[in-house]
Amino acid sequence: MERFDIAIIGTGPAGLEAAITAKVRNKTVLLLGSSNTSDKVAKAHTIQNYLGLPNIPGADMAKTFLDHAKSMGVEITDDKVNAVYSMGDYFALQCHGGDYEAKSVIVAAGMSAMKPFPGEMENLGRGVSYCATCDAALYKGKTAIIIAYSEADEEEAKFLAERAESVTYLPQYEYVGKLGGNIKVELDVKPAAIVRQETGYALETDGDTYTADGVFILREQVAPSQLVPGLTMDGNHVQVDRSMATNIKGLYACGDITGTPYQYIKAAGEGNVAALSAVSYLASLNNK
Amino acid sequence: MERFDIAIIGTGPAGLEAAITAKVRNKTVLLLGSSNTSDKVAKAHTIQNYLGLPNIPGADMAKTFLDHAKSMGVEITDDKVNAVYSMGDYFALQCHGGDYEAKSVIVAAGMSAMKPFPGEMENLGRGVSYCATCDAALYKGKTAIIIAYSEADEEEAKFLAERAESVTYLPQYEYVGKLGGNIKVELDVKPAAIVRQETGYALETDGDTYTADGVFILREQVAPSQLVPGLTMDGNHVQVDRSMATNIKGLYACGDITGTPYQYIKAAGEGNVAALSAVSYLASLNNK
Repeated sequence: MERFDIAIIGTGPAGLEAAITAKVRNKTVLLLGSSNTSDKVAKAHTIQNYLGLPNIPGADMAKTFLDHAKSMGVEITDDKVNAVYSMGDYFALQCHGGDYEAKSVIVAAGMSAMKPFPGEMENLGRGVSYCATCDAALYKGKTAIIIAYSEADEEEAKFLAERAESVTYLPQYEYVGKLGGNIKVELDVKPAAIVRQETGYALETDGDTYTADGVFILREQVAPSQLVPGLTMDGNHVQVDRSMATNIKGLYACGDITGTPYQYIKAAGEGNVAALSAVSYLASLNNK
Repeated sequence: MERFDIAIIGTGPAGLEAAITAKVRNKTVLLLGSSNTSDKVAKAHTIQNYLGLPNIPGADMAKTFLDHAKSMGVEITDDKVNAVYSMGDYFALQCHGGDYEAKSVIVAAGMSAMKPFPGEMENLGRGVSYCATCDAALYKGKTAIIIAYSEADEEEAKFLAERAESVTYLPQYEYVGKLGGNIKVELDVKPAAIVRQETGYALETDGDTYTADGVFILREQVAPSQLVPGLTMDGNHVQVDRSMATNIKGLYACGDITGTPYQYIKAAGEGNVAALSAVSYLASLNNK
């Protein structure tokens, strides 16, 4: 398996800036996230205070950023990261589309406003999961509920349904898909709480209660403390110092995920610092 | 005297970003520094990694930044700051061109590679000074040496010479001026050390030794610990936390002056954070 110099999680301003800075320093980069940059940028109204891009609509800023990255040969791997494990002198990244390795990692995954459901955190890893493709093998002859947040999750549902007896699919986005067979799609269902039963789980919603052996929550983004086991948090944010270092050696964070203000230029500036800190860390590995 | 909401010292990326962010928040801004932005930007070769401005020559970046600021009504007051004094709930700024007041201050003055001369720091304020216009009144019938670093210093020399008996002017830049009268210009003299005499000072240079009652060093930039008495440093840099707050309440720092990496996007990101921290501080003053 190719081991990248730097894996960057997130394609907002922080992740893209980190990627171009790493490229300037001739590092191999795995950039994971949406190939459309962050929704927060693309859907923003006019932005006044990103120095150098006056009075720019969010969609134009997103295009400008992506074009810049592309012009420097930065490619985006459109995948979601489920977990990052420190393996000593490298990191293993478990993604929905496959596994990767990198010598250092930069977490620039932004802030999700979404709160976990009641019953979610305490049952994670024992029937509640964030990655259907990762756990599909365990679902032979079993039933599952998928709470889905984007069209890309439909592929995960299909993959899981090949193993599972049946899948209940609850899209939380504008569903125009054609899932069928042993996948039952229920529209306009708002999940409320996950309750552990004697066997399996009950998902309580605004209407019915659904039961299954397991519940998958395919959020765009996993909470940082879930994403990187052992990561020290400061409230909802990843704790970093001014070099963007976290408590885990070789792992850096930048952008909204490190705290307020949630501003594009602040995120980009931190992405630059995180990348250069990772470059220094890589040099220290080579000097060992 | 008008009391500004925020005085910003420095017109590089950090200072300009702080200024436009403060403008967005409807604060009154005094932006002090060179109206050509920082020399470091304007003279830079092509910059690759300022996200959104791919492959841009320094001169173009400088123009883009200045145009952005101008488009938002940000004006630059082309003046050098000699000292900033905390007066409790406001700050007094002593500049070469006059005095100002502001409720909060952002120091974005960049890093000067220049080291103080031997004898400079220990004699500051007792015959060695950074501001000729500030001290001119003390020089009636006395002699002075001026070590000058830019054309703008010639005006200060003239002002001082109106009071002083005579002035020796040692330009450290390409001099094409026409100073005369009681101002003696000595070209290509490299100052080496300032030595306190029984009365006045001797300036030792690479050739001669010059003597006078006082020595003025008109650097583009004053060391931060001189600029703001009581400011806590971290080596050569101003110590800040992640909100860009210094140890002095209401005074923030950003950009190269706060530490490495010396990168434009890092400086701009910090300028944004400093401005928003100042805005919060101003709100806390109003709530008292």
